[in-house]
Amino acid sequence: MRFTSEQRLDDGVLEREFTLGEIPGILWTPGSASAPAPLILVGHPGGLREMRPRLARRARHYAAEYGFAAATIELPGAGDRPRLAAAEQARSDLRRAIEAGEPVDEIVDALVLPLVERAVPEWQTTLDALLSLPEIGGPVGYEGGVISVGIRLAVVEPRISAANLFAGSFVPAALFEEARRVTIPLQVLLQWDDEGNDRQAALDLFDTFGTKEKTLHANLGGHTGVPSFEIDAGARFFARHLS
Amino acid sequence: MRFTSEQRLDDGVLEREFTLGEIPGILWTPGSASAPAPLILVGHPGGLREMRPRLARRARHYAAEYGFAAATIELPGAGDRPRLAAAEQARSDLRRAIEAGEPVDEIVDALVLPLVERAVPEWQTTLDALLSLPEIGGPVGYEGGVISVGIRLAVVEPRISAANLFAGSFVPAALFEEARRVTIPLQVLLQWDDEGNDRQAALDLFDTFGTKEKTLHANLGGHTGVPSFEIDAGARFFARHLS
Repeated sequence: MRFTSEQRLDDGVLEREFTLGEIPGILWTPGSASAPAPLILVGHPGGLREMRPRLARRARHYAAEYGFAAATIELPGAGDRPRLAAAEQARSDLRRAIEAGEPVDEIVDALVLPLVERAVPEWQTTLDALLSLPEIGGPVGYEGGVISVGIRLAVVEPRISAANLFAGSFVPAALFEEARRVTIPLQVLLQWDDEGNDRQAALDLFDTFGTKEKTLHANLGGHTGVPSFEIDAGARFFARHLS
Repeated sequence: MRFTSEQRLDDGVLEREFTLGEIPGILWTPGSASAPAPLILVGHPGGLREMRPRLARRARHYAAEYGFAAATIELPGAGDRPRLAAAEQARSDLRRAIEAGEPVDEIVDALVLPLVERAVPEWQTTLDALLSLPEIGGPVGYEGGVISVGIRLAVVEPRISAANLFAGSFVPAALFEEARRVTIPLQVLLQWDDEGNDRQAALDLFDTFGTKEKTLHANLGGHTGVPSFEIDAGARFFARHLS
């Protein structure tokens, strides 16, 4: 892990860009801390440059108000990272199939399953590097999308103690099955009128999660209309489970 | 409104029992306040004696942590109030119909609609009396069940600015229609595995509410298993809208 920039923000939070091999990322840590901080891994659908303001808003709230460290990385094949030809093909197949009203299950598998296979080990390597920093101590939470990545991480990565997942459609059947094996506390955020998200599929997925402690927060509005109060609701969820 | 008992609790909250005509109730007010307090009307399914510990826990949190006043009254025909023969008959018809697997719509109408007709004016009279106290200033929120009472109050009572409703089945079709006319901010609390509550009906009702600002909090567990963190989530909802 190599830090490439460092900036002290006006809320006291230290924002550092880093690279881990070819993977770019950003780390936010609290301005002052008496002990190593819990860590939130902040997932997103890819395209760090465009997502950055939204991610930074959440991460800085977590760091400044709750003393959590927060970090994000670019997804494989997204942003400035090398394209993945198969993923590009699957993405364009998916658009075409949706427009034509054709079934999408096989295309979703072709798009999401390889992404999960690549992204999850990268998150785990990132977690290794972050937990080796003296200012970060765990426990660890995961939040955001891609929800399939979050499901797999929740199942395979024992260092993750809680997850705040953003509902998305296009969850492969195999990941639906894995959701039954999730046992950590979950909060699931659903936009009730998400243009690109099948509400019933999201409710079915919530129902499927195997954990005994799960909460759904559904809000009126489209995909990008998550109310700002959900930032603090996410923080409070993690505060219950990571502090 | 006549106060019949007064007790200063260890969190500084003043708890007073009152009667308003034949209606018994309880008022909780903050230990100290620099200005007249916002008010939460705390609804429940009837039976104040049995419900009291749960209601007091919420009300005291609101008063001690957020500076809200909170008040509850007994429902018509419940607790120590005179029985209502028609309601008793409808309640026993409903039990019999559920056991026999028969349709319940007409029985639900016979049970709930007269209750709403009686309970809503009583809440309004209670609101008049509470708002005349110098220590209470509004704005006003409503929370809890019976959800049909909450729907009607949200539609007809302009002094209520926000409602935190507990999902319940047995909502008459007429109240479903009224839900379209609710325009105040709503939070709806749903127990995902509520034995006595049709999940899909509750999701449909959430979908039906006409307000632009509505949030669903669904938690795993049965009717009485609402997680304790939802008390504070309710308080924070009201703090956003009443403060």
